[in-house]
Amino acid sequence: MALRVGIVGASGYSGSVLASILASHRAVELVFCTSDKRGGEPVGEALHPTAEPLQRLRFEPNASALTLAAHVDLVFLATSAEVSVDLAPRILAETGARVIDLSGAFRLRELAEYETFYRFAHPRADLLPQAHYGLPELFGAPPAGTRLIANPGCYATSALLTTAPLLRAGLVETDQVLIDAKSGVTGAGRQAKEDYSFCEVSEDLRAYKVLGHQHTPEIALGLERHGQRAKVTFVPHLLPLRRGLLTTAYLRPKAGVTRAALLECLRDAYAKAPFVRVVDSGRVAIKAVAGTNLAYVGLEANTDVVVSIGAIDNLVKGAAGQAVQNMNLALGLPETEGLDGLLRFAP
Amino acid sequence: MALRVGIVGASGYSGSVLASILASHRAVELVFCTSDKRGGEPVGEALHPTAEPLQRLRFEPNASALTLAAHVDLVFLATSAEVSVDLAPRILAETGARVIDLSGAFRLRELAEYETFYRFAHPRADLLPQAHYGLPELFGAPPAGTRLIANPGCYATSALLTTAPLLRAGLVETDQVLIDAKSGVTGAGRQAKEDYSFCEVSEDLRAYKVLGHQHTPEIALGLERHGQRAKVTFVPHLLPLRRGLLTTAYLRPKAGVTRAALLECLRDAYAKAPFVRVVDSGRVAIKAVAGTNLAYVGLEANTDVVVSIGAIDNLVKGAAGQAVQNMNLALGLPETEGLDGLLRFAP
Amino acid sequence: MALRVGIVGASGYSGSVLASILASHRAVELVFCTSDKRGGEPVGEALHPTAEPLQRLRFEPNASALTLAAHVDLVFLATSAEVSVDLAPRILAETGARVIDLSGAFRLRELAEYETFYRFAHPRADLLPQAHYGLPELFGAPPAGTRLIANPGCYATSALLTTAPLLRAGLVETDQVLIDAKSGVTGAGRQAKEDYSFCEVSEDLRAYKVLGHQHTPEIALGLERHGQRAKVTFVPHLLPLRRGLLTTAYLRPKAGVTRAALLECLRDAYAKAPFVRVVDSGRVAIKAVAGTNLAYVGLEANTDVVVSIGAIDNLVKGAAGQAVQNMNLALGLPETEGLDGLLRFAP
Amino acid sequence: MALRVGIVGASGYSGSVLASILASHRAVELVFCTSDKRGGEPVGEALHPTAEPLQRLRFEPNASALTLAAHVDLVFLATSAEVSVDLAPRILAETGARVIDLSGAFRLRELAEYETFYRFAHPRADLLPQAHYGLPELFGAPPAGTRLIANPGCYATSALLTTAPLLRAGLVETDQVLIDAKSGVTGAGRQAKEDYSFCEVSEDLRAYKVLGHQHTPEIALGLERHGQRAKVTFVPHLLPLRRGLLTTAYLRPKAGVTRAALLECLRDAYAKAPFVRVVDSGRVAIKAVAGTNLAYVGLEANTDVVVSIGAIDNLVKGAAGQAVQNMNLALGLPETEGLDGLLRFAP
Repeated sequence: MALRVGIVGASGYSGSVLASILASHRAVELVFCTSDKRGGEPVGEALHPTAEPLQRLRFEPNASALTLAAHVDLVFLATSAEVSVDLAPRILAETGARVIDLSGAFRLRELAEYETFYRFAHPRADLLPQAHYGLPELFGAPPAGTRLIANPGCYATSALLTTAPLLRAGLVETDQVLIDAKSGVTGAGRQAKEDYSFCEVSEDLRAYKVLGHQHTPEIALGLERHGQRAKVTFVPHLLPLRRGLLTTAYLRPKAGVTRAALLECLRDAYAKAPFVRVVDSGRVAIKAVAGTNLAYVGLEANTDVVVSIGAIDNLVKGAAGQAVQNMNLALGLPETEGLDGLLRFAP
Repeated sequence: MALRVGIVGASGYSGSVLASILASHRAVELVFCTSDKRGGEPVGEALHPTAEPLQRLRFEPNASALTLAAHVDLVFLATSAEVSVDLAPRILAETGARVIDLSGAFRLRELAEYETFYRFAHPRADLLPQAHYGLPELFGAPPAGTRLIANPGCYATSALLTTAPLLRAGLVETDQVLIDAKSGVTGAGRQAKEDYSFCEVSEDLRAYKVLGHQHTPEIALGLERHGQRAKVTFVPHLLPLRRGLLTTAYLRPKAGVTRAALLECLRDAYAKAPFVRVVDSGRVAIKAVAGTNLAYVGLEANTDVVVSIGAIDNLVKGAAGQAVQNMNLALGLPETEGLDGLLRFAP
Repeated sequence: MALRVGIVGASGYSGSVLASILASHRAVELVFCTSDKRGGEPVGEALHPTAEPLQRLRFEPNASALTLAAHVDLVFLATSAEVSVDLAPRILAETGARVIDLSGAFRLRELAEYETFYRFAHPRADLLPQAHYGLPELFGAPPAGTRLIANPGCYATSALLTTAPLLRAGLVETDQVLIDAKSGVTGAGRQAKEDYSFCEVSEDLRAYKVLGHQHTPEIALGLERHGQRAKVTFVPHLLPLRRGLLTTAYLRPKAGVTRAALLECLRDAYAKAPFVRVVDSGRVAIKAVAGTNLAYVGLEANTDVVVSIGAIDNLVKGAAGQAVQNMNLALGLPETEGLDGLLRFAP
Repeated sequence: MALRVGIVGASGYSGSVLASILASHRAVELVFCTSDKRGGEPVGEALHPTAEPLQRLRFEPNASALTLAAHVDLVFLATSAEVSVDLAPRILAETGARVIDLSGAFRLRELAEYETFYRFAHPRADLLPQAHYGLPELFGAPPAGTRLIANPGCYATSALLTTAPLLRAGLVETDQVLIDAKSGVTGAGRQAKEDYSFCEVSEDLRAYKVLGHQHTPEIALGLERHGQRAKVTFVPHLLPLRRGLLTTAYLRPKAGVTRAALLECLRDAYAKAPFVRVVDSGRVAIKAVAGTNLAYVGLEANTDVVVSIGAIDNLVKGAAGQAVQNMNLALGLPETEGLDGLLRFAP
């Protein structure tokens, strides 16, 4: 019998893609989607008119999330950190469902960082160590019994995949990890803001939250979790495109480290990772990953610098696809189930 | 045992999407892809790195198409009309394979039209009546024994779906069918032309081939095949987007015909069509169909005019998706096989 | 001594372009700009950091518009119809300034049309006949003493330039004027709406307000003012680009009317119009006019249909540029002053 | 009497913008434009239909460049490095005209670098020291008698403006200057290449020529010319937009250097530079400079890193605008002549 899952917040961009992926997943049944904005509307019509399983569903109000959660095996929270930090503990306490949270609510460990970067006081310090940080290529499957998975941020996913193996292998210095990242507009979520209007975004590129973005501590903690503390500098930019994220990381090679050794390190690290492709150059492009759960990583290097470049689709590997990958691992399903057939649909 | 199919010209946009769709089709096996441009390269790497069946293939040279065709049940020609007009007859004569031709080589009936609109002398007048014009919503499944299917053009598909039922039902006048159509740039194929460069296309809209486009006689013949001759005016425009095609058709209602009657006519016509959605307004958008084999049709009307608006993805319902739909019908498979799960992947 | 002018509502798109144009106009001095949104901010910084005259100004609150108007020769209202319909009469009554209104508040004559299309009851029926409809290529300079100029809508400007001469010359039938128009997103104004967000607009084309757009009666009245009543059908579409508007008009030629005669008619009509270029084909593109006050018009025709195609920049000839053209004519300045040097800045 | 100038290669993007700027320059007369591609065509029609001075010109063949140069005071070469390296010496030897070369042919000093980065053997080592590197904000007006000005590359212009003052002032370390740059597609010139087609560029971002771009030695030499050698790492990316270039530079602050001191340094350096705006944050956007000769520079810093961000329009400050600025300085005209009125035309 199929496992039963639900999505809270299914009308945003991440939630929509999540519903689309789950609609063709063979081992789980999507039994509810909530959305206050679209409450009562047919899910299929709004999200994916050709995916059969969605045609049976209507959006439920967010307020019924807890009740609905009581009847499923796993709940995805595609909600803001403020909502997740309140809702996840209640689902964990009052139902038997597992939770995969796509927000930042359970990704960090330090309460102070929540105040600085998320601007709220985190009420559940006790849950932070229990949350599994779900970046499978670096941290594997969640330990047995894990009920709360913090699905990584899009920038953090790409930054960590692009740099963590090189740091852990001791091939590069730890005193300076520079991450210059560029994301498509869906990264900002579905919003009615002049800043994200077509006329303002088109033909523009801007840096934002320079040295102050909330994924900075997440990247630093990710490196630490992976076994190597390092000083992280992170600067995001907003691209005039919808989907995709490119990370250009600048690292300092230790003396004597060759380009070949660096490449070999990446290849070893991802030899068994079904979604990571390592390429022998810096020619990495968003186009190669859009619409897929793939991450590409490539590099160039000389004696002074390592330039490691990674690309993901921010809504798939950077959000919904990785959430499904985490679900698969948590439920003992094949890691690629529901994700291997994603159509890239070139161009 | 799975039916075996191949694609000639699989590195262009239509051929690429076709390969992606066939890669997840459960009833056929894609056994070859040809491309002179990418000869020898791995197909999966180029077209769709996560689709398992493509990882086994390398692009063969186009010159081997005839030889390869001898070992399959059906060949898709995603080639130019000039290539198809030569190759299709040879495949039909020298092998047992069926042919679905995505070019215009077998869509018309009048040799003079080939000279006027395609600028070549058609050498095989005898084959034109044998070719089945594959627009299933209007003309059904190919008759038993059909070996040559002319897959309709993208503009013609949308124009015919948007107008033909209203004409056949006698609800609108036949002396004036005005088709104002707008297509994304993939409609022009994969090309290295300054006219289709980013800098020229972006922030521009242009009309082209006004009153002289080769789909004009195809639309007129399509209406005639559907039972009602009419005078067709067709004006295409190039949109600054990649995929999608919107048709705004202007028709003259016969006296006393109501908006409700027109809408009812469309609903009846497509009641059993799995890929057509009829909406009760003119708010039809490319976004609703991009990445799917769907066609949307909606309308507004008053006593003077009927405005019937249709949207398709030019590479799916307008090319590769419809080709697979035709294959399904020709081979006795379910019409939606391989096409119902296409991920729209909003946004 | 330079004539003094001011702009009410200078932070929207039309108002911004207007300020930019006026900043390099040699015969007028821009002495105030109002904007509630940007009240107190330096105008130059916001709108045009290299235009010297704007560096001296700060945005005033809209509430001071009437007071400021008392000290200038002419006021531009780049405000909504609701604001203009209230403010224009007060400026006319309480100051000596002329008013050029960029909204639709004074473009129509029938009160009922304001209720239907603008959704308000127009309080000043008396002013409607006094307002000069400022489309200089069709209606010339405002009569001496004109104090209120209704600056035409962008769609109406393009539709009228593309069709009116052919109708007045009796070359086409009047029972059917079909206008299929496509506009860039700036036509919707500066807005924080999800519908106009980058993610929703990019890669999409949609028809909207089909048969119900407020420019429909404006076009019909424009034709009537130009001497020939006709039945107008108007369908607008939203393009994924920022600036530019293309109109494809479908007309029915009278018996015996040749393509050459139609073209000659357009050439005669615009022989002395400094901003209109007539081309001998349907290859009309937005790119040719973006950033200029130009209108291009071209056509193709056969015995059944005339396809007349026109392009303008919706913010220049469709709004701010035409407003300056009207100002020049109203104040006795050369018609092209401030407008001939507009840099198109290809690409 | 106006000084007379000409453009060789006026139909490319830089040459087109250059012609547009010169058309409204009050102190020079543009007397010829050459282009093999458009030989014989009217210049105004192709480049700028509303700029009066261009309406008198037709494109001459490139072969007549030397003959035409004999009758002007200054020639702009908007040609490839291969053409410039041959043509510039002949103009200097056989005519009295000055030359401003927009290519890279005379920007470097080391012959070996031409072989490595430009892939040709430079035949005129003797001219390299005579060429003035025309980045006025760092190197001032050309010395009296200068006849050859090497107009800087777009990436180098932005990288140097963003970093050079901080290096010269000794506020940052010299062992690591990391330049992550992103450019619009016009930076690649007017080209018919699939790589720059709309379908390939749209919705994509790619890194290219990682650690191997020809502007790398130009940036390093520029820093050296400005008084401070440093190790430069340069990685360019191709943006899905037409015009604009953003540089994100990562530098290491010396001990004790504060953010305020860094900002003060930039402000001092550009206090008298009419085209540079220093902002007190990292919120720098291409939108602020598109269509202008402005450069914006802003920064954020902590004890570990300085992030200095700069934006220019690659075709104006990065090419044609800077060429006019250099001409103004070389001919003793006001530095901003022809450049202060550039309309940004928001949006």
